[in-house]
Amino acid sequence: MPQFLNTNDADFDTRFAALLEMKREDAPDVDDTVAAIIADVRARGDAAVIELTAKFDRLSLTPETLAFTPEEIASAIGQVPAVERDALELAAERIRAYHVRQRPEDARWTDPDGAELGWRWGPVSAAGLYVPGGLASYPSSVLMNAIPAQVAGVGRLTICAPTPDGISNPLVLLAAHLSGVDTIYRIGGAQAIAAMAYGTGTIAPVDKITGPGNAFVAAAKRRVFGKVGIDMIAGPSEILVIADADNDPDWIATDLLSQAEHDESAQSILITDDADFAQAVARAVEAQLQTLPRAAIAGPSWRDFGAIITCSDLSEAATLSDRIAPEHLELCVADPEALFAKITHAGAVFLGQWTPEAIGDYIGGPNHVLPTARSARFSSGLNVLDFMKRTTVARMTPAALKAIGPAAEVLAASEGLGAHGASVAARLARLNADEG
Amino acid sequence: MPQFLNTNDADFDTRFAALLEMKREDAPDVDDTVAAIIADVRARGDAAVIELTAKFDRLSLTPETLAFTPEEIASAIGQVPAVERDALELAAERIRAYHVRQRPEDARWTDPDGAELGWRWGPVSAAGLYVPGGLASYPSSVLMNAIPAQVAGVGRLTICAPTPDGISNPLVLLAAHLSGVDTIYRIGGAQAIAAMAYGTGTIAPVDKITGPGNAFVAAAKRRVFGKVGIDMIAGPSEILVIADADNDPDWIATDLLSQAEHDESAQSILITDDADFAQAVARAVEAQLQTLPRAAIAGPSWRDFGAIITCSDLSEAATLSDRIAPEHLELCVADPEALFAKITHAGAVFLGQWTPEAIGDYIGGPNHVLPTARSARFSSGLNVLDFMKRTTVARMTPAALKAIGPAAEVLAASEGLGAHGASVAARLARLNADEG
Repeated sequence: MPQFLNTNDADFDTRFAALLEMKREDAPDVDDTVAAIIADVRARGDAAVIELTAKFDRLSLTPETLAFTPEEIASAIGQVPAVERDALELAAERIRAYHVRQRPEDARWTDPDGAELGWRWGPVSAAGLYVPGGLASYPSSVLMNAIPAQVAGVGRLTICAPTPDGISNPLVLLAAHLSGVDTIYRIGGAQAIAAMAYGTGTIAPVDKITGPGNAFVAAAKRRVFGKVGIDMIAGPSEILVIADADNDPDWIATDLLSQAEHDESAQSILITDDADFAQAVARAVEAQLQTLPRAAIAGPSWRDFGAIITCSDLSEAATLSDRIAPEHLELCVADPEALFAKITHAGAVFLGQWTPEAIGDYIGGPNHVLPTARSARFSSGLNVLDFMKRTTVARMTPAALKAIGPAAEVLAASEGLGAHGASVAARLARLNADEG
Repeated sequence: MPQFLNTNDADFDTRFAALLEMKREDAPDVDDTVAAIIADVRARGDAAVIELTAKFDRLSLTPETLAFTPEEIASAIGQVPAVERDALELAAERIRAYHVRQRPEDARWTDPDGAELGWRWGPVSAAGLYVPGGLASYPSSVLMNAIPAQVAGVGRLTICAPTPDGISNPLVLLAAHLSGVDTIYRIGGAQAIAAMAYGTGTIAPVDKITGPGNAFVAAAKRRVFGKVGIDMIAGPSEILVIADADNDPDWIATDLLSQAEHDESAQSILITDDADFAQAVARAVEAQLQTLPRAAIAGPSWRDFGAIITCSDLSEAATLSDRIAPEHLELCVADPEALFAKITHAGAVFLGQWTPEAIGDYIGGPNHVLPTARSARFSSGLNVLDFMKRTTVARMTPAALKAIGPAAEVLAASEGLGAHGASVAARLARLNADEG
């Protein structure tokens, strides 16, 4: 059974704090191994990547076979059943439609002193997307990473997706195709991250790397950060459901299990203002675990990290939610908009009982790459801006420089930076001379 | 003398590549020391911070004297001469006016399937700004870090600014005051970063930490990343000036020196399409170095890392500029807008000969915290969005769920995630039953 908490209990604060601090991930320290792999790839390029792929993925490659050929991609895509192709196409279309609205605007204006100011956004030139192999090879994640990059206008999109024992996922290749990616390397691990960051004879380096991965991939992304940009380092998935008694306990139980089935380290929490409903959901979860295909994963997640919190009212639920700062937040209450207005920190919010979180994983449109481990306090889900950067711009006229230059001289002097001041003073002297 | 390159030279590509790869910073590996300091602050809180401040800053504090009192701040501010106060106020006002325009918009719409979608931006609840002590204690940096946070709507703003031997900078306190920060701790180093990330008995933890610092501060920021958000880890400053022959060589020389005087590791590069102008600027730099107050810093920077590149035309200059991806870029040419249109990667651009980069450091309005070391390829200067996060939102109606839910079921099945599919299927079954 999961933990049961009640905000009226004397030990609630202590137990709730412990729940927040619970360490769910025991990431192995692979940093030394990863450092050696990166150094090897930087030194020996393709040869290192090929050796490491033979070692870790039991796959023999040459520089010529590192990437899937167009024929291999077309052939794999041809195997995808029409129903799956249609579903993936609808998902791609809806994700694109959502993210297109995130394209930022340039700005330029002239201020009262005559200074022209503004900024200009532009895409990164090249991005690399990591797609894990094996069980965690999710075509939906390809769409969620690649489409924002494509919408941003990234010129060159590369995917690295390991194919252990040579086994690839046709849906991943189709998702790449639908997202405008045609360069897909069948490599993975820290060696793939190093190859994308530094380049090899065959693999052109990129400027930004995103996508989930195991401990080796995460450590490699941390190490190449600075040389290239990276997205967040994602932790295990989480859901918080706030539900009143006017819900089907079976639906809420399934929603909780839809995070628990991701990973034994995932965390599912229910907050409700009705103690009977809390019990009903707990019973429903137990019942569903009897038949759930991935019960061997969802069960331990629910027992070890799950929690059901009974509170006095929905305002209290909102306060608790902000302390959790959940990755996913379902508001299954009569007036979800009113409750949403009280929420400050959450990655993605799902309003009302007709919006199960799984809709957001696949087809809703918003991104499913979201801040975990309470980082929704300070970060956002993956979005178009992650693949763009802003250049600021300023243009002074002589009049503008006369208006604001003297203050810059004063401040430069106060910071002891003589050339800073002189660069303004020389220009002002010319203006004064011209007028004299 | 700095390096002279000419794009017509046979060895240009090799030398330009070497210039790009030049290692300018030899950061000491202080990671173990920093890890120990962070662990100590987490374990012992105020006591550790006080001990470390006594050790590193030769300053004896108590929990009660960790922060400046309002009286101390008011007294220090009262010492600032009116001319400096006026300059700082004008800078604050202009920086605020620029950043207010960066406030993002929320969005909400209903798509053709009846799904309501959108996002909502919100500020981080609390941010901590690090301000170095000693020589690098720049009031302008206080404004550049604190004002975007204030404009974002951050509820609680904290500054940590070490005061070695108890010596504080009244202008830093005034800049904090003008930026709406009234909690200023006189602590620094890794202990200050740890205190802001984890909190102590006296110091409340924050969600985001920004600001420049030495190797200890940078290593500490890397270590607390994840627990809190951080800004970029800044490297030594850089400027690229693209100038045609129709410029005063003395002005361009001063502009180059205004970066070189920051730091012996700073880098100043001139690209020009006129070989005689190149020589004239080189002579002007040498002449100015005879009298520049900070020649002992600017001289080594210019000799070791400076470069003057002569190219064939301005299109070529733009191509080279994008490979450099400069932090600061001055376009001192007849038609700077036309050249700006050819530039893809730069942190901040200064258009025309009346816009010396120093204007941007102090008073222009755009931020002076900018991406260094070629990271303008993938990142932006500090801005209001760095202190905000975006929550996505989705709300399905029964009709919307019927329209797009089946595709989510198909994709969940293809990824082997049974509860994901079931969470949609259970709701669709109800809808079908209600209609039947």
